[in-house]
Amino acid sequence: MPAELHPRTKITTESIFSRMSRLALQHGAINLGQGFPSNPPPAFLLEAARKAVGTVDQYTPPFGLPSLREALAEDLGVSPEDIVVTAGATEALSSLADSLYGVGDEVVMLEPYFDAYLPQTLMVGARPVLVPMRLTDRWELDLEALERAITPRSRALLVNSPYNPTGSIFSREELEAIVTLAREHDLWIISDEVYDELYFEAPPTPLRALAPERVFTVGSAGKRLEATGWRIGWIVTPPGLAPAVTGMRQWSSFCSAAPLQAAVAQALPIARAEGFYPQLRESYRQRKDLLAQGLQAMGLEVFEPVGTYFLTARMPGLSAETLVQQARVAIIPGSAFYASSPPPEGLVRFAFCKTPEDIAQALERLERFLKIRG
Amino acid sequence: MPAELHPRTKITTESIFSRMSRLALQHGAINLGQGFPSNPPPAFLLEAARKAVGTVDQYTPPFGLPSLREALAEDLGVSPEDIVVTAGATEALSSLADSLYGVGDEVVMLEPYFDAYLPQTLMVGARPVLVPMRLTDRWELDLEALERAITPRSRALLVNSPYNPTGSIFSREELEAIVTLAREHDLWIISDEVYDELYFEAPPTPLRALAPERVFTVGSAGKRLEATGWRIGWIVTPPGLAPAVTGMRQWSSFCSAAPLQAAVAQALPIARAEGFYPQLRESYRQRKDLLAQGLQAMGLEVFEPVGTYFLTARMPGLSAETLVQQARVAIIPGSAFYASSPPPEGLVRFAFCKTPEDIAQALERLERFLKIRG
Ligand SMILES: Cc1ncc(COP(=O)(O)O)c(C=O)c1O
Ligand SMILES: Cc1ncc(COP(=O)(O)O)c(C=O)c1O
Repeated sequence: MPAELHPRTKITTESIFSRMSRLALQHGAINLGQGFPSNPPPAFLLEAARKAVGTVDQYTPPFGLPSLREALAEDLGVSPEDIVVTAGATEALSSLADSLYGVGDEVVMLEPYFDAYLPQTLMVGARPVLVPMRLTDRWELDLEALERAITPRSRALLVNSPYNPTGSIFSREELEAIVTLAREHDLWIISDEVYDELYFEAPPTPLRALAPERVFTVGSAGKRLEATGWRIGWIVTPPGLAPAVTGMRQWSSFCSAAPLQAAVAQALPIARAEGFYPQLRESYRQRKDLLAQGLQAMGLEVFEPVGTYFLTARMPGLSAETLVQQARVAIIPGSAFYASSPPPEGLVRFAFCKTPEDIAQALERLERFLKIRG
Repeated sequence: MPAELHPRTKITTESIFSRMSRLALQHGAINLGQGFPSNPPPAFLLEAARKAVGTVDQYTPPFGLPSLREALAEDLGVSPEDIVVTAGATEALSSLADSLYGVGDEVVMLEPYFDAYLPQTLMVGARPVLVPMRLTDRWELDLEALERAITPRSRALLVNSPYNPTGSIFSREELEAIVTLAREHDLWIISDEVYDELYFEAPPTPLRALAPERVFTVGSAGKRLEATGWRIGWIVTPPGLAPAVTGMRQWSSFCSAAPLQAAVAQALPIARAEGFYPQLRESYRQRKDLLAQGLQAMGLEVFEPVGTYFLTARMPGLSAETLVQQARVAIIPGSAFYASSPPPEGLVRFAFCKTPEDIAQALERLERFLKIRG
């Protein structure tokens, strides 16, 4: 028998998201679990990709195709020198973990958390410190708890706004308070803004605008352009730090898929010029309303999102396994987002990046199931 | 001033490969440095990608698109369950580093080495132990030195055949000796076989055939199908270990580019059926002969490769910087592949994955330059 695998491999196994998708398939369930959109990517993106294939096929520099860095810089209002293109936001987050912390360091993040944060922190040997959000009739940031969680070992704050799974967006005041804490305690800030174009009221403030010297912004073409499988993401670094982050990213996957980088570079200005994002928001707003109203009509408590394509609600006394098997609707249980404290009673997450038909049918199935159960 | 970056970021900066490409551009040099092919990918691959774009655009499972796992299993004669699709061989190697070793562990590898091996080992906290190859009139594996390098802390042997930069291929006897050592000392073997289809004499033996219980094979569609920028690679694991490796890979970049995975799945059986690899070898054989004979005619000592698209030779007394600036030919200095011992006197690497015209012109430029210098 050969040697054992490294204990690091114990950190993570099949994610609940993959498992629920597998169960959905198995039971013929409608999948409102995993957050992949039912929309295809926009035609202008597909066309750009079909043209790039056969012309941009070899290695790009690890920091990204120059045309993509330029397009992102223009879109985000930053310098191309401060951009590192990554294989999705997932690799952006893991390259930042490599760049910022290791054994002996603590990373303060909020709970509920996006599932990658915990294993990525553990894999580099650092310790995640989780600060629960408060849930009243809405999700609230507990600034005092956040401050109490900071120790001399803290290296970074990791925040996500628009926030998966809560659907909330931090106000300017909350962001300013976060920045004040980070400055006082000399912390880096990782700001996961993959849903930056998915908001239903006021647009979110980019955190780097408030603290350009310490904020790393993470973005995702997969989320913006409905192409989660293309694996094009990015980091905006504080000035001067892109080369060091590129050094880490280069030994993770070297560079992102070259023809798809070229396509996203072409598509970003078109998306702005053609008003793609307002259309996207409008289409998600309709689906959000359909879902929220449907669930409320069944008597469920819904925490109405102002951003992302996720909605949280309470469905006490029902497991996600029961739902996928008996109601044939797949959702994600709140426990998937909690590790240090129990999830709020009955918390579940619905993804509404699905067709209105699927959402309507899922609502019917749920209603029927809840009626039968009484 | 915010906190410092993690010391891990000191491990790696701009690679010599990127730097030489940059200098090549700057000086209008012919680039025989970095190993990206001048050929476009084959038409059947491009066509498959144009069709996949718009149909396979969302997340695939982290272990890979089922159709790609099937196609690879068929091509390699292994079970689909033992395959993990990665973002290029680079991510395959980094996910294996995550899976197999950490602080306190040693990884035994040969020198000259492919540039990713060192930083990837250091990034997970393990120590690379380098064993120099012997260079007589050819590259030779020093089995005694290899055995001496193994200690109780050794966790894995990392070998590469066909071998970049030497162009050599280990014989069956050498592979058996490596396996014997690994079994005696209970080591994993990482076998980097990205050039498995690029050989000019006998085909290489897949190392996993000799020790399926401990060999992780690394492969690359980028190398096989001349699409280095597509970032589709793979790992064949010993039976039962793919889930643990997938656990690591999933938090590195989640999954590989979905439409390009679909395209490679389509292309793999076509490449076999249409005899693409023998054609590829023939086209590289011609370019290798052109380069080798040209360099020999100038009086250089050439170590003729039997695999890969790289050739090593001696050009004593000349720096790569001088060559790129004055001869306007970019190559890679031997020092790029050595860290523990000095490189052989005057060693340089040429890439011949370039057009015959470029190779011929590079030879002319070199000849003129060497004549003027006297
Ligand atoms: C908050 C958040 N961050 C990051 C990601 C990962 O994005 P990508 O698909 O670009 O890797 C997701 C995906 O669901 C997410 O919800
Ligand atoms: C020996 C070796 N291994 C791995 C790689 C990385 O391959 P990929 O482009 O698939 O990441 C290379 C690329 O040059 C290589 O030469």
